[in-house]
Amino acid sequence: MNQPADNPAADNQPFGSTDAERIVAKQSVELFSDNDPLILASGENLGPIRVAYETYGILSAEKDNVIFVCHALTGDAHAAGKHSLEDEKAGWWDDFIGPGRGIDTDKYFVVCANVLGGCTGTTGPTSISPKTSKPFGLDFPFITVEDIVRTHRALMSHLGIEHLAAVIGGSLGGMQVLEWVAQAPENLDNAIVLASAAQLSAQGIAFNTVGRRAIYADPHFQNGEYYQKGEVPKYGLALARMIAHITYLSEASIEKKFGRRLQDSDEFGFELQQETEFQIESYLHYQGNRFVERFDANSYLYLTRAMDYFDLASRYGGLDAAVKNTTARFLIASYTTDWLFPSSQSRKLVSSLVSTGRHVSYCELESHFGHDAFLLEIEQLTKIIKAFL
Amino acid sequence: MNQPADNPAADNQPFGSTDAERIVAKQSVELFSDNDPLILASGENLGPIRVAYETYGILSAEKDNVIFVCHALTGDAHAAGKHSLEDEKAGWWDDFIGPGRGIDTDKYFVVCANVLGGCTGTTGPTSISPKTSKPFGLDFPFITVEDIVRTHRALMSHLGIEHLAAVIGGSLGGMQVLEWVAQAPENLDNAIVLASAAQLSAQGIAFNTVGRRAIYADPHFQNGEYYQKGEVPKYGLALARMIAHITYLSEASIEKKFGRRLQDSDEFGFELQQETEFQIESYLHYQGNRFVERFDANSYLYLTRAMDYFDLASRYGGLDAAVKNTTARFLIASYTTDWLFPSSQSRKLVSSLVSTGRHVSYCELESHFGHDAFLLEIEQLTKIIKAFL
Repeated sequence: MNQPADNPAADNQPFGSTDAERIVAKQSVELFSDNDPLILASGENLGPIRVAYETYGILSAEKDNVIFVCHALTGDAHAAGKHSLEDEKAGWWDDFIGPGRGIDTDKYFVVCANVLGGCTGTTGPTSISPKTSKPFGLDFPFITVEDIVRTHRALMSHLGIEHLAAVIGGSLGGMQVLEWVAQAPENLDNAIVLASAAQLSAQGIAFNTVGRRAIYADPHFQNGEYYQKGEVPKYGLALARMIAHITYLSEASIEKKFGRRLQDSDEFGFELQQETEFQIESYLHYQGNRFVERFDANSYLYLTRAMDYFDLASRYGGLDAAVKNTTARFLIASYTTDWLFPSSQSRKLVSSLVSTGRHVSYCELESHFGHDAFLLEIEQLTKIIKAFL
Repeated sequence: MNQPADNPAADNQPFGSTDAERIVAKQSVELFSDNDPLILASGENLGPIRVAYETYGILSAEKDNVIFVCHALTGDAHAAGKHSLEDEKAGWWDDFIGPGRGIDTDKYFVVCANVLGGCTGTTGPTSISPKTSKPFGLDFPFITVEDIVRTHRALMSHLGIEHLAAVIGGSLGGMQVLEWVAQAPENLDNAIVLASAAQLSAQGIAFNTVGRRAIYADPHFQNGEYYQKGEVPKYGLALARMIAHITYLSEASIEKKFGRRLQDSDEFGFELQQETEFQIESYLHYQGNRFVERFDANSYLYLTRAMDYFDLASRYGGLDAAVKNTTARFLIASYTTDWLFPSSQSRKLVSSLVSTGRHVSYCELESHFGHDAFLLEIEQLTKIIKAFL
């Protein structure tokens, strides 16, 4: 929700392996304007748009070594490194980005930007509306994955980058990769789609809709105008996160990590309202509470709805039509225990890519981590990405 | 929540195939007392306890033809027939109970009773507390599957029935069947467990806990004392039901029935707060709203917690110990697309039964209906139950 100062120049420095060599700065730039707005998929206009991003590694003179990283639903631009040596945690894909890592910053110039509608620097419902001088809230226009990618492509243009060596992302990030292929079919060499699909399943929509209802039901939601009210709809947002979090885990990983073990006792308490008695309950409660400290409820509404709407085939008149003009090589990877984006969906996508004569590799990766595997199984991912790139 | 008049006699009449021959009366009886209470698993006492039940068919002179039907989480004693010719809907297992049906009322005397803690006639949080003359609400004692079965066994004793030809149930009903085996190992001939397990999985606990939190978060919940307040926590209860309902369906059945189809339009509305735009959203919303008309929020809290606590092995010092003394034959059935009670859990149970030398049959039944299959795939179920009995 902090807005870094305008700094259009890329952070064009080596990115190393030690903590000191991995200090990165969050950058940001204002794109579009009131006169030259982004025309959204809904038909509405939006501009100016501030985009927060980070870069890792050095842009080649030919500007031909760029990898764009698309983050997932609640991720952000801070994919790797730390903002200062005092930071406790590094970026969300830190083990995967660096010299000799899966995305090798000795070779590649890596860019990751926060999505449109997000809450960590890129324009979204928490941003100040130029018209009202108050946070947009629900006055923020409806956004889609298409709009997110248009914004990121505008960032690339701003940085003088016209062609990408690769676009990579998992989950909602993978949807962005597919959208990128459809929008700029000849401007990327490799498209890497992890734990994702060409459309959100009806089951995925179902979980999103109950999550959003939990937010709407929170008395502090106040129709999205909670920013100046002192209280955010944290109970509803935490509940939405808990529901979603279950879908990110596999039955096997929950069973292994928590099973039916109790949190603070060896014996049942026989008390109805003790809702953290089982370890799994305590864990979900903790995850929900942690989430509300870093994420905005309105952003969650907008971004889950963007996910619901994503359907590459219906947008471009068929999956074949969406990908038929691209020269990119595809790597599609799914995980054995991911039931939110099951392998069957990846296989369907691969079939379409094969039938249109695209260059496509497909891996079904073994993991017990469920949907979250693309964030956790870094060693495995590193191997296949290195082999592919 | 209606309390039928005390009528301890069984409705001992033929149960036929035509609507007129399938009129049944809800009966009820008061068991236990303040002086002779049920001692609950928690150590607390409860008495008197009113039990609502229905019967179908004729009790043999030898009282040796009794099948007890255990209902699932939100079911009730009204398993078959209608209460009057004007009723729109018949009981929840109507196609399965009757002359020549899966549970053949020409042969068997069938009993189904509402569970302790329920809200359709058996004592639960909606009942009037003798101490306060107000509904119990959260003063109702903590109950377990063990307590539910003890109550039903007391009902059987009251009806003069000491031995059962079979106990059958799906989901929470299947848990009751297993508990019945442990409590009365030599008093039943057949134990039929459908879409269930010997313990609720951690994933099952996870979904229950978020459902309960949705109820607690509803401002109308009022710590469970909403009965005289004019408003029930219907938004929270509907949300809990929506979450649970997703887990009762399979990904395949949702995809087939709804897919990504929109409810009232061929085109997206690009409106954030239109939460019934997709058919699956509209369906879940409808299911949530329908549920609050027939179910009590406090009962939902108590009964889901009873499910969470159910763990036959830990209660009886191991699964083997729980079943080793029974003379019952077992039929365990699971469904291919049930991910709430997956086949793996049934197989685990079957292994234990086999290793203790029990007589056990196991079927994994093909269905795309997910967990709900035991309520929907009646033709298939009829075949295997007839063959087994």
